[in-house]
Amino acid sequence: MQGTVLYGPRDVRFEQRPEPEVIHPTDAVIRMAATCVCGSDLWPYRGLQPIKDPTPMGHEYCGVVEEVGSAVKTLKPGQFVVGSFATSDNTCPHCRHGYQSSCVGREFMTSAQAPFLRVPLADGTLVPTAGGMPPEALIPDLLATSDVLGTGWFAADAANVKPGGTVVVVGDGAVGLLGVLSAKQMGAERIIAMSRHQPRQQLAREFGATDIVTERGDEGVALIKELTRGIGADSVLECVGTQESMAQAIQATRPGGSVSYVGVPHGVDLNAQKLFYTHVHLHGGPAPVRRYLPKLIELVLNETIKPGKVFDLVLPLKQVAEGYRAMDERRAIKALLRP
Amino acid sequence: MQGTVLYGPRDVRFEQRPEPEVIHPTDAVIRMAATCVCGSDLWPYRGLQPIKDPTPMGHEYCGVVEEVGSAVKTLKPGQFVVGSFATSDNTCPHCRHGYQSSCVGREFMTSAQAPFLRVPLADGTLVPTAGGMPPEALIPDLLATSDVLGTGWFAADAANVKPGGTVVVVGDGAVGLLGVLSAKQMGAERIIAMSRHQPRQQLAREFGATDIVTERGDEGVALIKELTRGIGADSVLECVGTQESMAQAIQATRPGGSVSYVGVPHGVDLNAQKLFYTHVHLHGGPAPVRRYLPKLIELVLNETIKPGKVFDLVLPLKQVAEGYRAMDERRAIKALLRP
Repeated sequence: MQGTVLYGPRDVRFEQRPEPEVIHPTDAVIRMAATCVCGSDLWPYRGLQPIKDPTPMGHEYCGVVEEVGSAVKTLKPGQFVVGSFATSDNTCPHCRHGYQSSCVGREFMTSAQAPFLRVPLADGTLVPTAGGMPPEALIPDLLATSDVLGTGWFAADAANVKPGGTVVVVGDGAVGLLGVLSAKQMGAERIIAMSRHQPRQQLAREFGATDIVTERGDEGVALIKELTRGIGADSVLECVGTQESMAQAIQATRPGGSVSYVGVPHGVDLNAQKLFYTHVHLHGGPAPVRRYLPKLIELVLNETIKPGKVFDLVLPLKQVAEGYRAMDERRAIKALLRP
Repeated sequence: MQGTVLYGPRDVRFEQRPEPEVIHPTDAVIRMAATCVCGSDLWPYRGLQPIKDPTPMGHEYCGVVEEVGSAVKTLKPGQFVVGSFATSDNTCPHCRHGYQSSCVGREFMTSAQAPFLRVPLADGTLVPTAGGMPPEALIPDLLATSDVLGTGWFAADAANVKPGGTVVVVGDGAVGLLGVLSAKQMGAERIIAMSRHQPRQQLAREFGATDIVTERGDEGVALIKELTRGIGADSVLECVGTQESMAQAIQATRPGGSVSYVGVPHGVDLNAQKLFYTHVHLHGGPAPVRRYLPKLIELVLNETIKPGKVFDLVLPLKQVAEGYRAMDERRAIKALLRP
């Protein structure tokens, strides 16, 4: 088969790759229904996270089980499944605490931007859709649950979004936008999206944002304070991962409020003494998407939410390089790839 | 009157000071029943936190109301009161969220190591004891609620200590020891105190510690992991404030567990990417002691807890310099001063 490999900054190739097969008895192989490009793929794409060797790419996926290993108990070929970017046995102590992305057997998925994918720890990682094959129209929404919605949902959960609360979302990438959707689902009364891009602002509003702040840095923080009568927000979702965005998030939060951070921080250092006096709660990490998958899949299948709206570009898989380019240049929020 | 002034490293003087009086109508003046030396006083005493000018010292206090300003409504002369090191109006939004130590009118108390003290925002800051004058024997316990117990309690609360949970306390100063007591009160099943000092280990055990770990750094962390079947603790209370103690606390926590930090961090930097992958919750800051004071005073008055046991040295106030020396040299856990 052909799959996606990153060779270096802005050098994405779609080239011959070995066909995935069951290696361990707990593996499954799935035939991809859809995959996509992640905001986090742009770090190495832009050369901001150096890679040593050519690296297969992709960690968001949904599709049909093709083959299972001899130890796989709960899945069988033909089922439609969604999995997380982090594999999990879903039985270890960390999994039982709901932190499947810190599973003792965790592997971070890669090479999902391809027509077939080997998924380790299949029983614990993959969640089949209820009712068999989902309608074609819901594939983008189901794909979104695999990472970008699961991560936005974790951002809202980790920031303790509560009914009636005031929420700020820093970052208008797909995760930030779905953080808005998640906060809305959790009952937030006021959701302030920080965004400078008109089409993203519009989607933020569709997802439930009540206010848009286009300013950044100190000016942005001052506006948040103004909008919250000088108090600051109860919950702030940091969905970027830079020093500036983190500082902005922390400063926009009221004392005792919560900041979540869900994108891998790049070059971010926190001065603990400064953080101490802000009195914020801080929680983040690789989103334990597996914890939320059953609920998110249900919300998609009963059409309560339409997270697939973040895919504003659909390409044949073999045009994956154009997907990276479009996202890098911010021409697209998120590119969906169909094999 | 005479009061305590720090002139520079290890230069504590007990010298003539102006008599406190009501300045603002919301002030009260109290006659000190007891005061003490705080672990945090040792930072400037040791020269690790430079001071520019001679600085009046002390922020832990309890005593009898001597005089109140014209706007004070809930207190009257003759009442026995305890207050926090941070003043609070107890009505602003931050106070209503339980973060009185971030009150919009907050002042950090100083000059409590003296026979009289002016307390701003008296109505919101001071809590009178129920039933009038407390028994003399409970004065050390009541004094402890003013900061060191309140801070230990916040440490346990901020680290989400829950019934049945596994707790680690980093630091065997008075705050750490009372963190042990607090975790015990909150129903923790296992409380691991990290301490190298035999008398402190003993007090930790009296307060509820089930295990003592004398090792520090990587060795200490390895032992915690061993004691928790490789998982890490649910809740870790960081009660020191150095880079080493913070690293130790974070590494001893299970993914999804909670780290609290309640001593002002000195020279502590957190790499956000490392923190991200640990998956911990982080919360701390100046303890909102006022939130807990009514409950803690009640637990003292009904003799459920004896936090005053941390005072293993009692001195006349005028010998305050010896109190600092004894704590600096770790001859005493905490020095109580009687005017």
